[in-house]
Amino acid sequence: MSAVLFALPGNETMAAKLAAELGAEIGRLELRRFPDEELHLRFATDVAGRSAIFVCTLDRPDGKFLPLAFAAATARELGAAEVGLVAPYLAYMRQDRHFEAGDAETAPIFAACLSRTADWLVTVDPHLHRLKNLSLIYSIPTRAQHAAAPISRWIADNVPDAVLIGPDAESAQWVGAVAKTAGKPFVVLTKTRRGDRDVSVTVPEVERWRAATPVLVDDIISTGRTMAETLGHLAREKMKPAVCIGVHAVFAPGAYDDLRRYEPARIVTTDTIAHQTNAIDVAGLLAEGVRALWRAT
Amino acid sequence: MSAVLFALPGNETMAAKLAAELGAEIGRLELRRFPDEELHLRFATDVAGRSAIFVCTLDRPDGKFLPLAFAAATARELGAAEVGLVAPYLAYMRQDRHFEAGDAETAPIFAACLSRTADWLVTVDPHLHRLKNLSLIYSIPTRAQHAAAPISRWIADNVPDAVLIGPDAESAQWVGAVAKTAGKPFVVLTKTRRGDRDVSVTVPEVERWRAATPVLVDDIISTGRTMAETLGHLAREKMKPAVCIGVHAVFAPGAYDDLRRYEPARIVTTDTIAHQTNAIDVAGLLAEGVRALWRAT
Repeated sequence: MSAVLFALPGNETMAAKLAAELGAEIGRLELRRFPDEELHLRFATDVAGRSAIFVCTLDRPDGKFLPLAFAAATARELGAAEVGLVAPYLAYMRQDRHFEAGDAETAPIFAACLSRTADWLVTVDPHLHRLKNLSLIYSIPTRAQHAAAPISRWIADNVPDAVLIGPDAESAQWVGAVAKTAGKPFVVLTKTRRGDRDVSVTVPEVERWRAATPVLVDDIISTGRTMAETLGHLAREKMKPAVCIGVHAVFAPGAYDDLRRYEPARIVTTDTIAHQTNAIDVAGLLAEGVRALWRAT
Repeated sequence: MSAVLFALPGNETMAAKLAAELGAEIGRLELRRFPDEELHLRFATDVAGRSAIFVCTLDRPDGKFLPLAFAAATARELGAAEVGLVAPYLAYMRQDRHFEAGDAETAPIFAACLSRTADWLVTVDPHLHRLKNLSLIYSIPTRAQHAAAPISRWIADNVPDAVLIGPDAESAQWVGAVAKTAGKPFVVLTKTRRGDRDVSVTVPEVERWRAATPVLVDDIISTGRTMAETLGHLAREKMKPAVCIGVHAVFAPGAYDDLRRYEPARIVTTDTIAHQTNAIDVAGLLAEGVRALWRAT
């Protein structure tokens, strides 16, 4: 069984990289909008008897679900042997329980929608906070690939004098692992509470790190506020300008410019969401995930 | 069992009218977007043991499905006894078969998505062209209410000298029925083909109708091209400026201004989609449909 990859709009670059990694064909899926804004889709590549794999990153997800549902259902109707979904960024992972009475738990509802759409799902570092793994809400086989390895490699290659900075104790596990793989030192900021509103955040043994380049790593850069705060703490400690690394370049409107105002040495992201800061390639990671799940060989 | 109506964004006016018609409560559903554009929903009105009825017209549908799916699934989780959907305009009714090889049949796929969302559906004049009725694609009980009666009433009340104009033989059934109920004469334009590219469109017995106000009726005004063409034919025949009536004010970008350039006497629509041309109220019709399907009494 051969595989054919289809890019939903905006995912053409990632689909091409992934096809190259997998040695798979890129198929043509034509989408256009009628004057009333309804969508018209047409498969210009045959999918009968093949693995049809859709590439669609899911930031700003609300407008992306129906096109994907139409494409997947049509591929099935046209005889695709299986329908796979590669969503480098997976949305609706935060509202995983009722925070207040009457609140929607969007995570399992969205997961149910996607589970009815595809036969399997590959993604990169979904925001698993309280949920331990995707199988708690997804009823299809899933693979959550970890960007820690390519991020570590990028740091080792590009920031020889790096010291990884964890903004708080919570970050120790994930940032610590990246530091270890990159072969770089790792420091967690210390919070000292002097009063109700007087909390000072300092770098332990700061003199040791003044000559190093601080590197911040987070899974999602959305408003960028957490990173901006940490940059503020480092500046007050007279550390060198930091390199900010995010797995997912979500960037809320204005967030990128806001973050640059703190004058980091560089802002770097993986290409799970297309953005001018993309510098770390995850196509290889995604290909690994696809190979674990697809039936094509 | 009591009923509670919830307006999805933009449907507040229709929900209020419908609640008044049904003697039902308007519930509070709070929606806001996180900085990353994901949606947060919260029910501020209790739905446990009640009929939760969502009002959401479905023009420009792609961004509207997930919010509706979240709201409906959450209402169920919060104990709603049933989930109803009032969609005054129903989308994705045109691609009901494969027109070309590889084409998506969006109509049944969208219908399957909505059938999993709500327990029943009420709409007004869906574009049933080849499909004879909604039950061919919807697996839930549906009611398609007909706007012909309120449109006929509006014509009888507002255009005493009306002559209804059907642009072609296909329109005879629907426009003819409106004319009959309104107690007005009805005329179908005649196409005379003189050569491959020479088709003249004329009004039969045009002298009889020169003093009358032509009234055009169509189900959807999207690009407005069909109506604009008919207005052109009537102008060449030196008829009086026409009244254009559409059930659904879809209006593609620029379409409303384009149509006005043909100087109709007036453009009038029902309120299935909010638009400045709305003049004919369908809340009563929708309430009738809801009463036929809901379990609340």
